Amino acid sequence: MQIVTLTTDFGISDWFVGSLKGIIASNAPNAQVVDITHRIPHHDVKAGAFALMAAAKYFPEGTVHMAVIDPGVGSERSAIAASVRGQYFVGPDNGLLSWAIGPAGADEIFQIDNPEIILEETSTTFHGRDIFAPAAAHLAAGGEIAKLGSRRADMIALLWPPVMSCTDGSLKGAVVYIDRFGNAITNLENVVARAMLTPRVHLDDGNWMTVADYYQSVPEGELVAVCGSTGYLEIARNSGNAAESLGIRPGSELLLSPGKQ
Amino acid sequence: MQIVTLTTDFGISDWFVGSLKGIIASNAPNAQVVDITHRIPHHDVKAGAFALMAAAKYFPEGTVHMAVIDPGVGSERSAIAASVRGQYFVGPDNGLLSWAIGPAGADEIFQIDNPEIILEETSTTFHGRDIFAPAAAHLAAGGEIAKLGSRRADMIALLWPPVMSCTDGSLKGAVVYIDRFGNAITNLENVVARAMLTPRVHLDDGNWMTVADYYQSVPEGELVAVCGSTGYLEIARNSGNAAESLGIRPGSELLLSPGKQ
Amino acid sequence: MQIVTLTTDFGISDWFVGSLKGIIASNAPNAQVVDITHRIPHHDVKAGAFALMAAAKYFPEGTVHMAVIDPGVGSERSAIAASVRGQYFVGPDNGLLSWAIGPAGADEIFQIDNPEIILEETSTTFHGRDIFAPAAAHLAAGGEIAKLGSRRADMIALLWPPVMSCTDGSLKGAVVYIDRFGNAITNLENVVARAMLTPRVHLDDGNWMTVADYYQSVPEGELVAVCGSTGYLEIARNSGNAAESLGIRPGSELLLSPGKQ
Repeated sequence: MQIVTLTTDFGISDWFVGSLKGIIASNAPNAQVVDITHRIPHHDVKAGAFALMAAAKYFPEGTVHMAVIDPGVGSERSAIAASVRGQYFVGPDNGLLSWAIGPAGADEIFQIDNPEIILEETSTTFHGRDIFAPAAAHLAAGGEIAKLGSRRADMIALLWPPVMSCTDGSLKGAVVYIDRFGNAITNLENVVARAMLTPRVHLDDGNWMTVADYYQSVPEGELVAVCGSTGYLEIARNSGNAAESLGIRPGSELLLSPGKQ
Repeated sequence: MQIVTLTTDFGISDWFVGSLKGIIASNAPNAQVVDITHRIPHHDVKAGAFALMAAAKYFPEGTVHMAVIDPGVGSERSAIAASVRGQYFVGPDNGLLSWAIGPAGADEIFQIDNPEIILEETSTTFHGRDIFAPAAAHLAAGGEIAKLGSRRADMIALLWPPVMSCTDGSLKGAVVYIDRFGNAITNLENVVARAMLTPRVHLDDGNWMTVADYYQSVPEGELVAVCGSTGYLEIARNSGNAAESLGIRPGSELLLSPGKQ
Repeated sequence: MQIVTLTTDFGISDWFVGSLKGIIASNAPNAQVVDITHRIPHHDVKAGAFALMAAAKYFPEGTVHMAVIDPGVGSERSAIAASVRGQYFVGPDNGLLSWAIGPAGADEIFQIDNPEIILEETSTTFHGRDIFAPAAAHLAAGGEIAKLGSRRADMIALLWPPVMSCTDGSLKGAVVYIDRFGNAITNLENVVARAMLTPRVHLDDGNWMTVADYYQSVPEGELVAVCGSTGYLEIARNSGNAAESLGIRPGSELLLSPGKQ
């Protein structure tokens, strides 16, 4: 069965996601649609890019990942589709797809502009339904990606925040995503922290914490930097909400340092 | 694959929707269930009718649309199923299905009262699980609609609020649905506004706005009447919540007028 | 089509549930995943156990029920799978599965510890993705349960709160679940109340109510003990939120008494 995943900021209170699924069912009757999430914060392209990156790799070959967080809907931004290591990605050309595609880039990129693919009457405000869903359904039904429109040489990529090396052996990183439990996922890799002697994470406000494998490695209510399930360190508070209580957000900086001996 | 869509006010925090899907899987093993939404405001039949209308037309022939917003569960209201232009609609006879079925009406209407179809032990409070889901599954499994119960000549219809023509060329309309972004969808059609010279929408409180194709046609924070994706004008605030900030609700009236020349 | 149901406290705002579904799609391409709910209150094993019990019985033979509410993730608790009357249950060994399995117990229980089944790189914080989803997919793909790991003689069971008989013919029960409408589901069976003459439910704070079949059996805003769709009495307020307004919670006690004659 062909899979189409959906990652959007449409929410689940209205009919928006339902109409996407209607379009897909009408054009790819054997596809199965899987929601990654529809609760990305409105217009937060980076949060959507991270969620898509974290989930996409677990899906089988042939999966079509459709993502729509699209503050520029109706403007000049392009609609694109890319083939990447046997999977497909469909969405606006605003960087949303770039972290899941990764630094190696896409195998092929096409603009979605073939009037035979998109809905005849295209609204100005709901390209998810009118452009992206028909394109995703076309791919899920076994259609060629080249049929979607004109070939593109490149696409917009979001900058993955770089990790900086300091002269004292510390690494300067940043928060990239806050999950619903208030855990702040960083760009610092678990493997790097694990290679350090008694590593610690320091925040700008003077708070610091040890690195551990479990939220429960520290007493309830205390901070801990957990080696997270995405492969990156997470700032967490055991049985609490780290991000809210510390006021940290995507972009907040932190320092990973080997402990004093 | 046969599709069953669900539109309810059951929410997604409990097992209610899960048990519907269990009934459908048990009785129509090849059906695929698609959620339109389970977050219709509790007992808001009109909001459910609008969401169902907005999504249903994008689904393929043979789709079974089951909708349950049912303040009268356990009372005398009937359970009905209708065939309409190759699709099926299943739900309480309280008007919920009427806007999706449209003014042309259903091809056939049946009351769901065949004891061989509904669950043996029917609860008094959860007809979604005990009556509507078995009926929807019966249709999705290829069963005849006439098997559901006794034929009906008609069903309850919600009044679609009429647009009034004023002597000065203005049109008086009303809000019919507020979406999660706070956009207030009206009964005034995009095509009518587009046929007017410099059309404007006026609210009762003196606020007015121009009609445009994009939310971003006005500066951030300002009001705009957008030609919406459902085919109707929407009162919106660019990057804001129009309905909340203006205090408008379903039923709130507005005036669409050609601009002064 | 093979069904896998999911009951978790992961929420739907992040990619967590999406990655579970990716693992299942990769390992059981013909399985259909059905969400029971992902909104069980965080770490509330009893609420999860009740929701799973209420929904599981409506699913067909062969269904794999995967449930993850897992405050002990990363600790010594086991991962288990059980076969029960033709269905399968997969989850942590913390009692979560026990109410759905019921007092008769499981037919077979296995620990999930076969390294060929679980993900090669297992995180310490997301066993849903790394252990439970691969195990559920193995079963959904027709794999033998004995392949998951070593056989177990028993599993942890949650105590179902007992109903106490008083000398005056009253029954002392307790609240076991609060649903999203604020209805407080008890351990007192509908059939017991129906066998009583003019039964009444008394709360600790002096409030009492009659037993009825419909929420609307009492005037708007008044309390009623409804014979609920799960087979148990529910404390409800017609068009209101009983649990919130009364301050009752899981564990709150109540008395079911025959009325005075």
